[in-house]
This record gives sequence, C-alpha cells and structure tokens, in this order.
Amino acid sequence: MSGRRDSPRRFRNACRKGQATGGTAGIASGFAQANFVALPQALAFDFLGFCIRNPDPCPVLDVTEPGNPEPRAAAPGADLRSDLPAYVVYRHGEVAEQVTDVGAYWREDLVGVLLGCSFTFDQALQAAGLPVRHIEDGRIVPMYRTTVACNPYGSFTAPLVVSMRPMRPEQVERAREVTSRFRRAHGAPVSVGDPEALGIDRLDVPDYGDPPRLEPGEIPVFWACGVTSQEAIRARKPDLAITHAPGHMFVTDLPALP
Amino acid sequence: MSGRRDSPRRFRNACRKGQATGGTAGIASGFAQANFVALPQALAFDFLGFCIRNPDPCPVLDVTEPGNPEPRAAAPGADLRSDLPAYVVYRHGEVAEQVTDVGAYWREDLVGVLLGCSFTFDQALQAAGLPVRHIEDGRIVPMYRTTVACNPYGSFTAPLVVSMRPMRPEQVERAREVTSRFRRAHGAPVSVGDPEALGIDRLDVPDYGDPPRLEPGEIPVFWACGVTSQEAIRARKPDLAITHAPGHMFVTDLPALP
Repeated sequence: MSGRRDSPRRFRNACRKGQATGGTAGIASGFAQANFVALPQALAFDFLGFCIRNPDPCPVLDVTEPGNPEPRAAAPGADLRSDLPAYVVYRHGEVAEQVTDVGAYWREDLVGVLLGCSFTFDQALQAAGLPVRHIEDGRIVPMYRTTVACNPYGSFTAPLVVSMRPMRPEQVERAREVTSRFRRAHGAPVSVGDPEALGIDRLDVPDYGDPPRLEPGEIPVFWACGVTSQEAIRARKPDLAITHAPGHMFVTDLPALP
Repeated sequence: MSGRRDSPRRFRNACRKGQATGGTAGIASGFAQANFVALPQALAFDFLGFCIRNPDPCPVLDVTEPGNPEPRAAAPGADLRSDLPAYVVYRHGEVAEQVTDVGAYWREDLVGVLLGCSFTFDQALQAAGLPVRHIEDGRIVPMYRTTVACNPYGSFTAPLVVSMRPMRPEQVERAREVTSRFRRAHGAPVSVGDPEALGIDRLDVPDYGDPPRLEPGEIPVFWACGVTSQEAIRARKPDLAITHAPGHMFVTDLPALP
C-alpha cells in the first residue's frame, strides 16, 4: 500500500483487514508511532514503573484498561488486537508466535501499553536534509542490545536497546537539534560514533531489524529504542505477553510533535 | 531561608529539618518542581493510568516502589516523607491533617508518585520579561476547579484544576512560546481570558492558593495544574493518601528543561 500519504486510521484499517503487514517507517507522516506491549494486569504496575523510571527508551503514551484493547488517549476507536501490521507473542519470555492479528491470544487480564518510537522523528530528519537510511533502503532500522543497564523497578530490569542511523560527523549536531524536541519519541541521540562504548561488538549484526548500510565517511548514531521494553518482558518471563514485531509499530492519532 | 539560590538538595534538607515550611515558588531556579501523591499500592496502577491518560495536568516524573520513600529517578537520596515543606493527609477523601512531616503516617504499601508542576517554568517566564504575580507578591498561585472533565481511567476521575497567572493580552503569545517547551510541566496555557468557559464563577475566590491580584488591563491566563491529582484522590476516597500542600512542592534534581 502507498503508506506515506495515508492517515493513521486508514493505515490501521488496512492492518485490521490484513492488507498491511510490513514495517511502518515512513508511514503516516506527522503522527506519532508507538511500541506496543500487552501483559497481564498482575505485572502491569511494575512494568509502568519500569517505563516511568526509564523515560528515554520507554516514554508512555497510553495504557488501556484491563481486557479493553482500545487505546483511548492515543487512538480512539482503534483495536490493539488487530491494528498493527505484525506482532510477536511471548510465552514465559520466549518467542512463541509471529502473527498479524492477536485476537485469538487476547485475555481479559491483559493491559496494553504504548511507548513512543523514533520513527516519529524520521520525517523531521528527512525534512532537515539528513539521511534516514532504513527508509531510503526500505528496510527495518537496525537495533542493538547494549551493555548499558536500565533503571530497575520492582521485578523488571533490562539492558538498553538502541536504534542506529548512519550519518556524516558534520550532520550529527543538526540531527541532535531536530530530535531533541521529540521528548516522547526518545529525544536526542544517546551515543555517537562509538559502538564499543555501548558494548556493541558487531555493527553488521544487529539484534533486531536489518543489517545497516553505512556510506563512506559515515559514523553510527544511536538513539534509545522502545524495544528495550521487549528485553524487560524477556527477562521477566510472564506466562503471556504480546508486543509489536520490531519495526512494525502502532500508528497513533497523536501529533508527532505535541 | 534564602530560597532562590539554594540547590534542590539543600532546600530538601532544610525541609527535613523543619526549617523550610513555606511555598516553593521561585525556589531552586533551573530545577523541576513536582506535585506529590502517595496512595496504597492496590490503587496505584489505576492512578498511574489516570495520570497517563491526562498528561497535561498529570505528567508523571517518577514513581516509587511500594513502601520505599526514595524517588530514585527524580532525586536520588531524597525522602518523600520529610523533604517537602508541607503535606496534606487525606483519609477517605477528606483532609485529615496538614503537617510538615509524614513519617508517622507512612505505610509499607504506600506508593509515591511525582507529577510535573508549573512552578518549573515560572523562572523562564520571568526571564522573558513576563509577570509572575504570585512570586512578585510572595503568595501561593491561585488554583481553580473547572467544569472540564479529565479522561477517566479505572476507578479514577476528576475535574481539571488550573493555575492562573494574570498578564496583558499582548504578553500571552510570548508566554505560550515560553511554556510550550515545558511538556512535563503542563506546557502551553489551556485557556486565556475567559474564566466562564472553564466554569470558574469567582476569579477572586480560588479553590486552592491565594486570591489573585490583577493589574489594570490584565486578563487571566490558565494552565493545567497537578492539583487535579488531588481532586482524583478526593473522589476515589482511599483510606489513606498523602499529598503536598498546594504550592508547597517537592523540588527535584531534574533539570527544568530536560
């Protein structure tokens, strides 16, 4: 589908009908995209505490009432069981299924949480004349598990996950200016040019998404990533959890810059 | 004490010793101030949901683990039982005590929540040459319960509470520019010049804080206020809840503009 010009609602409806199942980079320009996590209510308070203690990777945009799949603050009328292009179902912290609809897995005790995503600022980077390689190449942004520990809360902890966009050194300051305004979509870069400082050994082998393509003279620029929340789910091992598939976000009705 | 030049830690220590018991407007310039609510863990998830669904009045800055009074994200080493200048203790939604230390009331099931406060941007308004009357006059900012309903979540609901700063009409656009950057401290004004549109009948009789003083030609400018969270507590009637006394905020270590 021709994603770029679509409204959030139209894109979500295409997901609901099974017509949109790909990555969401570049979709619905001007609107915030979100990471999705659904987990049992018994763990949801601790999970919110973890997100609140780690606002750079996990800025909370909305939370649903138990059993209710409608994110009323972020997208009234939407259904989180069907309106994302692709999901991952976790059982006891392990990937059990990758599916395009989770109606069959939904339970009355599940709470859905939406967290800001860096795709929200990709168009602003492009509008500033900066490269966004994963959009140029039609691939999923590369994401890396780092050795930086998040702040724990209750029973939740996780290593920070980062997304990466290659740029020339002289472009980094402008990228910082542009993205620092997007406080609920990870804000400014967390690290520039030094993968080893984050404990990333192999830049060509990301933990999530597609391998990167760096042009001559480019360096890696890293932003905090909401997939950090999936690491927290993997570590906590709830009997059931559902997330978006990395790069396949929930497209909200919220403006990219509130 | 000479509040303006004090660091957050020094101010909190003065509170802890009972040496600082007044309002915090103008204290610790450059640092975020916060509303405080402590409530039983059994209600804390719903309360966080209410705050997340209403980010303009209730932007969450930190949440403590049950029984632990240290806000590790907002002010490591601080103690929320003693480090505010004044508290209100609610029992079943009614004001039971107004005290300067709540150690005697603390319980192992209490969760502390910190929410952004408009005092965070008062110095930026002054730096822009705009009036902040409650600081000029050494009074508590006037706050009003409105007829605007917040978004409910679970068992929590509340009317929006607003704070008010008088300004000349030609100053409002600049005030909007300055405050819109403070997204975690209520951001831009929610209403300008028309108290009746908010259901405020008597501008001279605020529901919280001191009566305002408008100079000739000034109009009232209203911002969303974290005391909205106290209205939610009043309506939900937990057996015990503790809040800051209006205008007597928790001074955090977080920068005013993150």
